[in-house]
Amino acid sequence: MTFANTPDGTIETDAVIVGAGPVGLFQVFELGLLEIKAHVVDSLACPGGQPAELYPDKPIYDIPAIPVCTGQELVDRLLAQIKPFGATFHLGQEVSRVQPQEDGRFFVATSKGTRFLTKTVFIAAGVGAFMPRKLLVEGLDRFEDTQLFYRVMNPAGFAGKHLAVIGGGDSALDWALNFAADGPHRAASVTLIHRRDGFQATPANVAKMRERCERHEMQFIVGQTTGFEEADGRLTGLKVTGPDDVTRRVPLDALLVFLGLSPKLGPIADWGLDIERKQLVVDTEKFSTNVPGIFAVGDINTYPGKKKLILSGFHECALAAFGAAPFVFPDRKVVLQYTTSSTHLHQVLGVQSPTRD
Amino acid sequence: MTFANTPDGTIETDAVIVGAGPVGLFQVFELGLLEIKAHVVDSLACPGGQPAELYPDKPIYDIPAIPVCTGQELVDRLLAQIKPFGATFHLGQEVSRVQPQEDGRFFVATSKGTRFLTKTVFIAAGVGAFMPRKLLVEGLDRFEDTQLFYRVMNPAGFAGKHLAVIGGGDSALDWALNFAADGPHRAASVTLIHRRDGFQATPANVAKMRERCERHEMQFIVGQTTGFEEADGRLTGLKVTGPDDVTRRVPLDALLVFLGLSPKLGPIADWGLDIERKQLVVDTEKFSTNVPGIFAVGDINTYPGKKKLILSGFHECALAAFGAAPFVFPDRKVVLQYTTSSTHLHQVLGVQSPTRD
Repeated sequence: MTFANTPDGTIETDAVIVGAGPVGLFQVFELGLLEIKAHVVDSLACPGGQPAELYPDKPIYDIPAIPVCTGQELVDRLLAQIKPFGATFHLGQEVSRVQPQEDGRFFVATSKGTRFLTKTVFIAAGVGAFMPRKLLVEGLDRFEDTQLFYRVMNPAGFAGKHLAVIGGGDSALDWALNFAADGPHRAASVTLIHRRDGFQATPANVAKMRERCERHEMQFIVGQTTGFEEADGRLTGLKVTGPDDVTRRVPLDALLVFLGLSPKLGPIADWGLDIERKQLVVDTEKFSTNVPGIFAVGDINTYPGKKKLILSGFHECALAAFGAAPFVFPDRKVVLQYTTSSTHLHQVLGVQSPTRD
Repeated sequence: MTFANTPDGTIETDAVIVGAGPVGLFQVFELGLLEIKAHVVDSLACPGGQPAELYPDKPIYDIPAIPVCTGQELVDRLLAQIKPFGATFHLGQEVSRVQPQEDGRFFVATSKGTRFLTKTVFIAAGVGAFMPRKLLVEGLDRFEDTQLFYRVMNPAGFAGKHLAVIGGGDSALDWALNFAADGPHRAASVTLIHRRDGFQATPANVAKMRERCERHEMQFIVGQTTGFEEADGRLTGLKVTGPDDVTRRVPLDALLVFLGLSPKLGPIADWGLDIERKQLVVDTEKFSTNVPGIFAVGDINTYPGKKKLILSGFHECALAAFGAAPFVFPDRKVVLQYTTSSTHLHQVLGVQSPTRD
């Protein structure tokens, strides 16, 4: 498979898969067996979706014929399985637009400017794109991207500034420690703010943070952000209320917030698809949405009896691939072949056909 | 799991699964997660169905997250996965009767006399029960079980007799060699008959057979059975027509036929279920047949979009298990839990819950 990082004109393709979780990955496989090449878009920086992001080291027991595997192992196995099909991955970007064209294809655009013209779209977006969870303080959002940041794109921009960092996970600690350390990006001051004196982070990171606090190279304040201060249209400080009910003022030039990722259905809601309780309504024959050519598989779809199981998503991929075949190959009928017996599928998979006995 | 060999009164249970192929095995798993115990019946002597019987050593590439495994490996993995649930297997017998009872349960009886009273039935019978393929010569069937046999139950009964053995696989060769060898079961004569001078058998068996023929301890005739002779109501000989168009007469006391196994829908056709082209019609919400409480999963069922894929059968098992829950637990609602996060499911699976971090 290929990882594409930069937009490179409009990409013409047979299939765009929205979501690189287990079901999106297996959609590559089922399309691949039918010789339909796919491009995959995901908001996260790596393929794997929820299992890789939320429980990479935790065991899963209900994948058929795999008595136990971790979230990351499941993803690695799927990546190995789809390797023969050379899908192209466009990561760290959300699909922002899906527009039907006059020729029956769809124009698909991402937040990073990648553009596709595709015959079919497969939405395998799970519970939605994983986006940074926002700090909910009224009025604060207008400082986003100028003084308030949910990810660090350019560390040099924070050098010499008074920084506040909110969060209790490794992302918050990593960046707080980074800007508090000697080096080209050292901040004028770093204040770490977390709602409690306990962290969901590696013990080593927590220990380093406490050490730096003892040496007064940074500060840690326990409390919730309850307000902010501004002057001349600029954010100048946060109000942080501690468990002692005292509200402290933290002066700052820039605010970094790492509250974890939260799934958002996001722009999918605007593509003209039938939605029921934040899920895309599909049939159970082809797992097609109400827009012919757009399919939905995995946790994001709904139909009578739907259970949000990875194994159900796998089944849906298979039927959706057959449902998509007429859009890609309007002139021929695509029939089911078996990977055990079909020498043609052996060629497609790049494996040797067993000799007949 | 347990293997039950003898009927032992009527077994009262929550679920009977008809078929121990991959889908029947995974049905045990999905029922097990909902704490529904199952008994499994299969016509073959070992669990595993088609993959174990027809392609144990051949690779399968389309089981999700298993880039490649053989038919037997798939079965072994499923057997390991269902181990915690202690299903009881009743092998070498076909389900012959399924009768609804007044109390809402089903009476299920097998060809070996095993009897169940069950709240639910899951038909995972694939293309049907694998039965010995019959020798199609008009009128010959009336000698079945007296002089014509498709399996050897009691080898001693053939000692000292003139035997004809039809077939070109290991079963035919094994038995022909067995009765031609010195020993308590030695026949008066053994004639092996096969339609061509080529075998689907292990080379060692073929070599042994040719050796015995050279030593005139048995004979091998190439040809098709085109008729038979009888006297006083007894089968006395076969007419075998060779590739030279000459018909030879093979005198015999008993005839053993090993033409392989062929799937038969069999008695399932008589259980009052809606059938379409030899397949059981189900809904896609619960994979229920038209008889509430009887579900059909895997290759034996049909619905719009159905593809005969093992992975589809797996999905069907999951939804059928939830569909069955109200029959087993009429007083409580069964909700979906995840094997990764549910400590209750960890108990059910007999695994340790990971510590929280």
